[in-house]
Amino acid sequence: MARKTAGVLGATGSVGQRFILLLNNHPDFELKFLGASPRSAGKKYIDAVNWKQTDLLPSFAEDIVVSECNPDDFKGCDIVFSGLDADYAGPIEKAFVEAGFAVVSNAKNYRREKDVPLIVPIVNVDHLDIVAKKIEDAKANNNEKPGFIVCISNCSTAGLVAPLKPLVEQFGPIDALTTTTMQAISGAGFSPGVPSIDILDNVIPHIGGEEDKIEWETKKILGTLANERTHVNLLSDEEIKVSAQCNRVAVSDGHTECISLRFKNRPAPSVDQVKDCLRDYVCDAYKLGCHSAPKQTIHVLEQNDRPQPRLDRNRDAGYGVSVGRVREDPLLDFKMVVLSHNTVIGAAGAGILIAEILLAKNLI
Amino acid sequence: MARKTAGVLGATGSVGQRFILLLNNHPDFELKFLGASPRSAGKKYIDAVNWKQTDLLPSFAEDIVVSECNPDDFKGCDIVFSGLDADYAGPIEKAFVEAGFAVVSNAKNYRREKDVPLIVPIVNVDHLDIVAKKIEDAKANNNEKPGFIVCISNCSTAGLVAPLKPLVEQFGPIDALTTTTMQAISGAGFSPGVPSIDILDNVIPHIGGEEDKIEWETKKILGTLANERTHVNLLSDEEIKVSAQCNRVAVSDGHTECISLRFKNRPAPSVDQVKDCLRDYVCDAYKLGCHSAPKQTIHVLEQNDRPQPRLDRNRDAGYGVSVGRVREDPLLDFKMVVLSHNTVIGAAGAGILIAEILLAKNLI
Amino acid sequence: MARKTAGVLGATGSVGQRFILLLNNHPDFELKFLGASPRSAGKKYIDAVNWKQTDLLPSFAEDIVVSECNPDDFKGCDIVFSGLDADYAGPIEKAFVEAGFAVVSNAKNYRREKDVPLIVPIVNVDHLDIVAKKIEDAKANNNEKPGFIVCISNCSTAGLVAPLKPLVEQFGPIDALTTTTMQAISGAGFSPGVPSIDILDNVIPHIGGEEDKIEWETKKILGTLANERTHVNLLSDEEIKVSAQCNRVAVSDGHTECISLRFKNRPAPSVDQVKDCLRDYVCDAYKLGCHSAPKQTIHVLEQNDRPQPRLDRNRDAGYGVSVGRVREDPLLDFKMVVLSHNTVIGAAGAGILIAEILLAKNLI
Amino acid sequence: MARKTAGVLGATGSVGQRFILLLNNHPDFELKFLGASPRSAGKKYIDAVNWKQTDLLPSFAEDIVVSECNPDDFKGCDIVFSGLDADYAGPIEKAFVEAGFAVVSNAKNYRREKDVPLIVPIVNVDHLDIVAKKIEDAKANNNEKPGFIVCISNCSTAGLVAPLKPLVEQFGPIDALTTTTMQAISGAGFSPGVPSIDILDNVIPHIGGEEDKIEWETKKILGTLANERTHVNLLSDEEIKVSAQCNRVAVSDGHTECISLRFKNRPAPSVDQVKDCLRDYVCDAYKLGCHSAPKQTIHVLEQNDRPQPRLDRNRDAGYGVSVGRVREDPLLDFKMVVLSHNTVIGAAGAGILIAEILLAKNLI
Repeated sequence: MARKTAGVLGATGSVGQRFILLLNNHPDFELKFLGASPRSAGKKYIDAVNWKQTDLLPSFAEDIVVSECNPDDFKGCDIVFSGLDADYAGPIEKAFVEAGFAVVSNAKNYRREKDVPLIVPIVNVDHLDIVAKKIEDAKANNNEKPGFIVCISNCSTAGLVAPLKPLVEQFGPIDALTTTTMQAISGAGFSPGVPSIDILDNVIPHIGGEEDKIEWETKKILGTLANERTHVNLLSDEEIKVSAQCNRVAVSDGHTECISLRFKNRPAPSVDQVKDCLRDYVCDAYKLGCHSAPKQTIHVLEQNDRPQPRLDRNRDAGYGVSVGRVREDPLLDFKMVVLSHNTVIGAAGAGILIAEILLAKNLI
Repeated sequence: MARKTAGVLGATGSVGQRFILLLNNHPDFELKFLGASPRSAGKKYIDAVNWKQTDLLPSFAEDIVVSECNPDDFKGCDIVFSGLDADYAGPIEKAFVEAGFAVVSNAKNYRREKDVPLIVPIVNVDHLDIVAKKIEDAKANNNEKPGFIVCISNCSTAGLVAPLKPLVEQFGPIDALTTTTMQAISGAGFSPGVPSIDILDNVIPHIGGEEDKIEWETKKILGTLANERTHVNLLSDEEIKVSAQCNRVAVSDGHTECISLRFKNRPAPSVDQVKDCLRDYVCDAYKLGCHSAPKQTIHVLEQNDRPQPRLDRNRDAGYGVSVGRVREDPLLDFKMVVLSHNTVIGAAGAGILIAEILLAKNLI
Repeated sequence: MARKTAGVLGATGSVGQRFILLLNNHPDFELKFLGASPRSAGKKYIDAVNWKQTDLLPSFAEDIVVSECNPDDFKGCDIVFSGLDADYAGPIEKAFVEAGFAVVSNAKNYRREKDVPLIVPIVNVDHLDIVAKKIEDAKANNNEKPGFIVCISNCSTAGLVAPLKPLVEQFGPIDALTTTTMQAISGAGFSPGVPSIDILDNVIPHIGGEEDKIEWETKKILGTLANERTHVNLLSDEEIKVSAQCNRVAVSDGHTECISLRFKNRPAPSVDQVKDCLRDYVCDAYKLGCHSAPKQTIHVLEQNDRPQPRLDRNRDAGYGVSVGRVREDPLLDFKMVVLSHNTVIGAAGAGILIAEILLAKNLI
Repeated sequence: MARKTAGVLGATGSVGQRFILLLNNHPDFELKFLGASPRSAGKKYIDAVNWKQTDLLPSFAEDIVVSECNPDDFKGCDIVFSGLDADYAGPIEKAFVEAGFAVVSNAKNYRREKDVPLIVPIVNVDHLDIVAKKIEDAKANNNEKPGFIVCISNCSTAGLVAPLKPLVEQFGPIDALTTTTMQAISGAGFSPGVPSIDILDNVIPHIGGEEDKIEWETKKILGTLANERTHVNLLSDEEIKVSAQCNRVAVSDGHTECISLRFKNRPAPSVDQVKDCLRDYVCDAYKLGCHSAPKQTIHVLEQNDRPQPRLDRNRDAGYGVSVGRVREDPLLDFKMVVLSHNTVIGAAGAGILIAEILLAKNLI
């Protein structure tokens, strides 16, 4: 089957670079379009980019000529991945959607729009029905296939909700949830990202806007699709209390989160039941046969000092989430440590997997 | 006034080295005795130690001949600081107490003994009345002044309870408390301490025994002295729920803790009341005029990305604790970030300040 | 063709772990034997090892039962890789050779033996003729195929000599050579290896024995095979002056070396000639079709801030060496920066490639 | 004696912040003027600065109102310290000199001007005679006391030339010199300075312009004052060959350099003679009684793994230089490791000490 044609907006930035890496030799997508700032436009990608990945720049991308982030320059593109900074993403992504493109965006700009699915692809695939509904409606009205946007969640939210999903499915609602994050520097990009003087021999106990994103996005991702499939019903503040404390630490990739949670239903499950539930979870993306979907969605580790970012971030190529130290909590029901790869399942990788799901569902 | 004579047990270890640094030019104490393992005994200190401090070895200590950790070798010593490893501290410290010495120990061995004060010197000075009572009793019985031991708390506990003390004094009991720590490598000593391969580009989400120490010691330190002054009444599990999650990060000195807490009394105070309370707190050690007591016990920082270990750990020479990001918590009442210098107020420095308090109270 | 049977000595150590990773799904070798200390013997490997690699423990190795490092326990093993510490390697490796095994060792113990080839597999494959000669002699005398040992060079030596080899071949002898190394912590193993307190925010300007190894081993590796094929004629101190200064830095993998060199012949080549020579070099291992041999032996980088360990250490899966900043030197002829992956081409990986070469040459 | 009035240009930058720290409670200078960009002008310093030092902002500086870098705003200032970026320093410093100010600058802009002294204050105090001569000439001509500029050397040059000075004085000229540096991130400032993604688990083998600075500045600093005291006679390329290779490493403060050198005269001194010479060196600034001058200019360390930045950078408050591993070099005469505090003796601290020397010599 012919591969779909893909493009990347914000191609020279940190998220854009990751999109390009992940699209190298991808069985479903062929990357042909790269958009960046006017300063880069007109140059070959290899000349426009300051490549900072530990994997080498794939040769296929070297000679693609970068254009501006203009829908006219992306004609024939089946799927557009946006790694744009929030400062620029708003109007550009809107223009692409209006021009009929399918956009998967890592930017925060449209995450809270009611009709925009906010997706962690190992968690809430069903929320993509909002897109299906849009397409069906257009068809019913004999309109052209509409453009749409799907938003990737915030990176630390992705790791957090992954283990919550199967727990809620099996044991019912979680009514209280805390997370204290220790987040990797790659999450801050690199132009310049975190200055080294701020992180060497240091912890920064603050990441702008991050705590609010976790507290809000969790309620959308764990929310249920409305019957009319036009939006998601968010969990209310009464249904779930979420409290986040976010820190930056001297780690290159991989967000570690110390979480605690309490179930609404009594009696709460046992530690072993929780671990079994996490271990047995198979995400929908895997069932759909998506190329990048993790074989093991959640790795439950038994060693008492795991997960660790350096040792566990690459499980299932970064699409799997690791959970360790599941134990009872004197305050809530359980505490545990969650590790997720922030640039894979928490950003660009999630975008790729979302696109694979869209394809599997015939939405692109 | 003549200075009291001091000795250090475990003098070549990481805590011992810090004791020696802090006793350099100390107005109250003159360090004359150094005890270490048989391998070091008989050598000059400079030849016995693998000095790893960023401050240079004080010249006064270079030529002190190290002895074994034997009470007979410490005759005439008014105060003995123990930096011994827990593996050795038990019988050695016991022998010193039985031989009539005043011992201030950083080891965990006797912290949970009923008649042993567990002291954070900026928090619970009144618990030293257990020692006063012992001395009074001996006097009343015409016995010799007895030996005794005072234990320094666990390092991450010290930072945690410092802001709790004034809050409880002013607003009443705290009934729920969580802390997620990001602890410095110096807390693990250095023979070998944390291997570099475990911490470079990494977080270790586990420190053996640490969570239990925090959860237990908090209940003793915040407990109230029994009327008979023979012990402290621990807070019960019903009175306060404490939940700790401990991590090691790539920081040299300074433990950062993200804490949340809920008061028992309603309505809870406001954020401003909490901050004012912390700011206004003057610890007893300062009122007693102790040399090392912090002028400002708790520094309340207003910048949203503080405290940070590299920038704030040395406030009041490491005896002050920094608190930042005081804000409401969706789950409990408040969350905040606490930073304390783990080798000063969390270990050796606490020992020195305890000794200063003992002196101010005529207990040595 | 059936795969050869392989074993690893010192299987639980850092080098042993790398051997196991590199033998996962290897087309030429099937790992069946794991030897370690008596403490580990009798256990399944997964229970005996403290796995510290960023890649997961390959499942094939999990259930292999570890034996002691005893030739009797390795019967039927075609090639034995030794990752033993120098403290143990001497008698054990000798016993294996005497029992007729082919041993490829990362230990330093036999590197300076006259009849032992010291091999950097992208540099001096011809020195393996010493082994060929031994086998031929045994055959001629109707003796059994003899055991033998081949030594892997010191890690920082490997990176250094890689670019020297083609330069010497094309432009004649180098008569002066300096290198200042910045070496990764993985080179020190991890039990405990480098303590974190020694390397966080620090440089250690000394690695025990390392400078002497570089200065000596370079003269053997760049030496010429004697006509009688029984040994290598070392370069003399008059032929080449080598000066090394070794440092440990906070890098996980990848040794960076700032080198300078002067050719004997005048006029010296130009910078462009040097770069072309390096770029054009194809190592013998690649010509032999060895599986792990780098397609591009030496990557000549043109960006002025490269090579960097984080970005370049994995070129050609760590078997390629990167060279950058080739420029004239005010003192000698040229200076340049060389980066090599210390645990691949500088240690275990070199061992695997040496074994592939031995196989290609029918020596095992 | 009344303190001289001091000002700082570029007061909000990294060098400016260090000037302010070093002028806290200074016996000779009272800091009254702070100049920065128009964006900061008019604000109190505490509101204008993003303070990033591990020492707290001195309270005396908090309320100083920042002005623009305009000579009119610095009236009455006896000495002006410039921490300006090279992009701005040129015209501003010129304006201050023309307005009659004494300027001590950390910028590179005027270092190569023939009549500008380039000073490492523990090395070449005599070069300040160029200033003395200017003042004498003005006096002789009944002119006003002229403005002048004195340049601080590049940071890595300072550490390098410190041990060279006494060696040349005692053993005659050095004719060949190599240095490979491992430089701290603080040398790159912090707006943003080195991005963390570039230095975590990494080495950057290039610092723009640095190698040329070392190679050139060494020849000026070790040059001899011309008889007419109007300039320094630079060492020629024939007199001394200098070769530098510069690297950035993950160290906060302290530049480590691996150096080699050859004396012109034969026979070369012995290792012990070299060490004695370094140990015995007393810099002129100390003889002049300057407050900040190091009591021990060069610390010769005997442990084989020293100096190390974390342990040795603060010797003599950062004004002393540490030298270790003095040993024979197979190529030149000696190799050794030199450590200097790049923001003290290599930048702002050097500026303060230069001003103290100017004062001691009645030049301000």
